[in-house]
Amino acid sequence: MANIQPRIFKGARDFLPEKMIPREEILKTMRAAFQKYGFEPIETPAIEYLEVLAGKYGDDADRLIYRLNYKTGTKDEAALHYDLTVPLSRVIAMNPNLPKPFKRYQIQPVWRADTPQPHQGRFREFYQCDCDTVGSTSMLCDAEIIAVSYEVLNALGFERFLIKINNRKILNGLVQYIGLDASRTGEVCRSIDKLDKMPFEAVAKELREKNFSDEAIERLQTAIEGEQSLAHFRKVFADVPLAQEGIEETEQLFAYLDALGVSRDSYAFHLSLARGLDYYTGPIFETVLPEHPHIGSLTGGGRYDTLIGVFNNGKNTPAVGTALGLDRIFTAMEQLNMLPKRVTRTKALVVLFDETTRIESIRLMAELRAAGINTEMYPDKAKLGKQFGFADTKGIPYVVIAGEDELARGEVTVKTLASGEQITLSRSAVVDWLNER
Amino acid sequence: MANIQPRIFKGARDFLPEKMIPREEILKTMRAAFQKYGFEPIETPAIEYLEVLAGKYGDDADRLIYRLNYKTGTKDEAALHYDLTVPLSRVIAMNPNLPKPFKRYQIQPVWRADTPQPHQGRFREFYQCDCDTVGSTSMLCDAEIIAVSYEVLNALGFERFLIKINNRKILNGLVQYIGLDASRTGEVCRSIDKLDKMPFEAVAKELREKNFSDEAIERLQTAIEGEQSLAHFRKVFADVPLAQEGIEETEQLFAYLDALGVSRDSYAFHLSLARGLDYYTGPIFETVLPEHPHIGSLTGGGRYDTLIGVFNNGKNTPAVGTALGLDRIFTAMEQLNMLPKRVTRTKALVVLFDETTRIESIRLMAELRAAGINTEMYPDKAKLGKQFGFADTKGIPYVVIAGEDELARGEVTVKTLASGEQITLSRSAVVDWLNER
Repeated sequence: MANIQPRIFKGARDFLPEKMIPREEILKTMRAAFQKYGFEPIETPAIEYLEVLAGKYGDDADRLIYRLNYKTGTKDEAALHYDLTVPLSRVIAMNPNLPKPFKRYQIQPVWRADTPQPHQGRFREFYQCDCDTVGSTSMLCDAEIIAVSYEVLNALGFERFLIKINNRKILNGLVQYIGLDASRTGEVCRSIDKLDKMPFEAVAKELREKNFSDEAIERLQTAIEGEQSLAHFRKVFADVPLAQEGIEETEQLFAYLDALGVSRDSYAFHLSLARGLDYYTGPIFETVLPEHPHIGSLTGGGRYDTLIGVFNNGKNTPAVGTALGLDRIFTAMEQLNMLPKRVTRTKALVVLFDETTRIESIRLMAELRAAGINTEMYPDKAKLGKQFGFADTKGIPYVVIAGEDELARGEVTVKTLASGEQITLSRSAVVDWLNER
Repeated sequence: MANIQPRIFKGARDFLPEKMIPREEILKTMRAAFQKYGFEPIETPAIEYLEVLAGKYGDDADRLIYRLNYKTGTKDEAALHYDLTVPLSRVIAMNPNLPKPFKRYQIQPVWRADTPQPHQGRFREFYQCDCDTVGSTSMLCDAEIIAVSYEVLNALGFERFLIKINNRKILNGLVQYIGLDASRTGEVCRSIDKLDKMPFEAVAKELREKNFSDEAIERLQTAIEGEQSLAHFRKVFADVPLAQEGIEETEQLFAYLDALGVSRDSYAFHLSLARGLDYYTGPIFETVLPEHPHIGSLTGGGRYDTLIGVFNNGKNTPAVGTALGLDRIFTAMEQLNMLPKRVTRTKALVVLFDETTRIESIRLMAELRAAGINTEMYPDKAKLGKQFGFADTKGIPYVVIAGEDELARGEVTVKTLASGEQITLSRSAVVDWLNER
């Protein structure tokens, strides 16, 4: 085998134990919350036929789909999934007998051929943790999706987060209101979506280049920069029935959020929330940390009542869902010092005194493991100092010492590394002693 | 968005809740066993540069690597990882300061452009659950790798499995013994590896076509089909020092397996175990179900002391590990009726009596969830019969009914679907009642 310079794919990451252990804990918290709300797990393959994915997200996103070098140019050309929502829609279309409403969670990596921005938590390969409810138009479903994100972020220890909420019907109404044809909604949404990252003036310039009239741009600015209450927009959009419908949905959604125990401080209506993807049709939402705008959104989702129909000869099935970004959440927790200092899950290291006691020390280790105590042993001949040093470096709290004489007496000594205390116990008592700690 | 016929990538699968819930339980069992043995989690990206993967597995396997349509033909050409061992080796080379021995587990999908054989549990996208120990040549590490597989399979309820054990040093010695040049070891191993699937005569024919002499083939057959004890091979290979070294390692490995509590019935030496991959250098092992040969191996691994050196300018780091095949294990458990019948994790469905009590019913659901009870509600207006039917279809055991009068009295009724029993409780008592069940 030829020598190779080891390199990791640009925009991808290795997760070593110090990052993986807290990641696993975060996922455990998420799964528990999803299950508490009645969501059930599914998984779909990373590889999908390109035609399943292409044309669902809008042109900008379509260009970011990673294609395989597999039957290129044919109907069977394959690609890596870009999100978990389009694959879910395919699954729903292919399994018409699933009981509805179907509430699922799905935790898997997705891939985007984007420019990596590690400090903002943007990578080419990253985990999405999705929960979606399929088969109901009730705003209770949208409220539950938001509530479960709220529950996860609370359980993880986030304190000041804001769930921004808007509705595509209101945005469609806004397009009418500023005097444009409905066909330009996508363009308006994509431009509004950039307001997070650039001032209105820059967006206005872009709109002017797209031949939007000055009057339209002015009406847009007034709506976006003015008061953001639902009551206000009810008046502003008095003559736009579509916007009224969106406002009613939002009011109902807020009432359900309240009944579900979501604190009123943690969400707000934001007309400038647009979300980039094409497939949304109703409520849309995104969670940000207002005090840390550089971190980017922790969750994002919305209602997509027509996407599944694309796979079902136009027979629509309503659906709503959100993605929780594990990497964004992890990056945020890291930057906000919310992660526990790395602690190994191993509780005890059995020290190998000398080769004569090796087999008996292995038996002792097996006894501790059989009692549920995570235990390891330094496998090579090594001085005691080196073995203690190994336990210390890894953060293993207890070292179990069994020399020849001790083993003959049926005893072992346990040393607590943090305090230096030692205690000698009968071999049968050591299990209980460690299990109590 | 254009209508699309929904299709799933050939050789890939969707996992709906009835499969995902037991899969999650299997993974939980594995993680607990890995942690008990002191293994810690890592993850590496699915996408690696092609040059990191290519040339490590042997020619047959190399052809099965999925390449991305990304910088094709350049040094940055990218591909999907074929296993988790080569990525681990890259990580070790790139992180020289990781404390050694480094014991890691890694649970991720891998991809192989193979011919799918679903009934044998062979797919193009499947999970590997790896545990490896890096940085020690002690046979204790090899024994622990085998012991942790044994522990996982026992914990999952497998009863009659056989861990076949061999050693590449013995196979290299065998090649000398049958009178061939060491350069032909790879060929011999790949042929021997096929003995699982075809009779010796078919393999012999293949060897004749590769210009192996009749004498060599006869000596090979005698060794493989004769007595399989280590004592026997010690005599057969008396003049082959490399084989003697492999036999000594195997004897030591067996002594450690014994001390670790691995039942002697569950493993055996098999000279015909070769394993297809090029990178093995010492012990190799594979777990099969002797009574169900069509299911294929559940685990497979071995020692690879030179692979990491490929990424480290030839500076070798010894390592040993195994992969547990989640899909093979799942397929086996399914075929052997070892999986629990599908049970939802949702405990209670709050029935919506009528629209006047909707908000209060949602509050009740939030109370149950806050107490840790997995609860859901049918979101749409629906007759009670339909709501009960939904709970029944999903296997939700308890239905919570709160009509207007009951709510006014601060009471709710709980119905146990299996027995039909009903009990009326105060709203505060219902949490304890459900939590006790």
